[in-house]
Amino acid sequence: MTAYDDNNIFAKILRGEIPCVKVYEDDHTLAFMDVMPQAPGHLLVIPKTGSRNILDADPEVLAKTIPIVQKLAVAAKEAFDADGIYVAQFNEPAAGQTVFHLHFHIVPRKDGEPLKPHSGAVADVEMLKAHAEKIKQAL
Amino acid sequence: MTAYDDNNIFAKILRGEIPCVKVYEDDHTLAFMDVMPQAPGHLLVIPKTGSRNILDADPEVLAKTIPIVQKLAVAAKEAFDADGIYVAQFNEPAAGQTVFHLHFHIVPRKDGEPLKPHSGAVADVEMLKAHAEKIKQAL
Repeated sequence: MTAYDDNNIFAKILRGEIPCVKVYEDDHTLAFMDVMPQAPGHLLVIPKTGSRNILDADPEVLAKTIPIVQKLAVAAKEAFDADGIYVAQFNEPAAGQTVFHLHFHIVPRKDGEPLKPHSGAVADVEMLKAHAEKIKQAL
Repeated sequence: MTAYDDNNIFAKILRGEIPCVKVYEDDHTLAFMDVMPQAPGHLLVIPKTGSRNILDADPEVLAKTIPIVQKLAVAAKEAFDADGIYVAQFNEPAAGQTVFHLHFHIVPRKDGEPLKPHSGAVADVEMLKAHAEKIKQAL
């Protein structure tokens, strides 16, 4: 497998070189809004330790990350009054991975509302900030 | 949220009341082939401790489960010479959940081969056993 390349966009976010709409942060983990949301409230959870995806991740890093995925899934469900939560994690382009730093997608789902395609337009940042605020209040 | 109901099909598999094509088992975790695979090698990883999904799971159970998801993702990629691995976890029917015991899908992906719909026909059990054997050998 290709090695981890710390010039990926999430590594740049972690270094503060480019902005994100932050939802949650602790010593090990960062969560922020997906800029091309498939549904309102779509966010990403990433470990601060770099790995390309789950295949080369440190198992201890995964074990610290998944309870944060849970915490944010619960909060996103409440914040958006969602009927369900889709959690997805893509490994390599054949599985839909486009940024090569391990990340979990958390997508609130409502009955009868299909997901938007992921590679659509970039969402309005003020809307994303409002969505992040709702999730933070539900944390 | 609806409480955990231990009459679900995965709870019955855990109690040995109905069979599965097993790939991996330890004190906390069971992995077995999905009987309606979306691609060859599609398997499921479940904790033995019952929860409806990620929303009501014990965080410590999640922390023990995700390294096993990783281990099986790596093995499935090797066993099926896959280009990528799709990991998904559905919470509530609006997000695609059909069995109400927490489970992670691991689906090998190949470039240019779309996923089959999940609710298709039940696969041939001998084929599933052969696929399980390939993954076990890659573990």
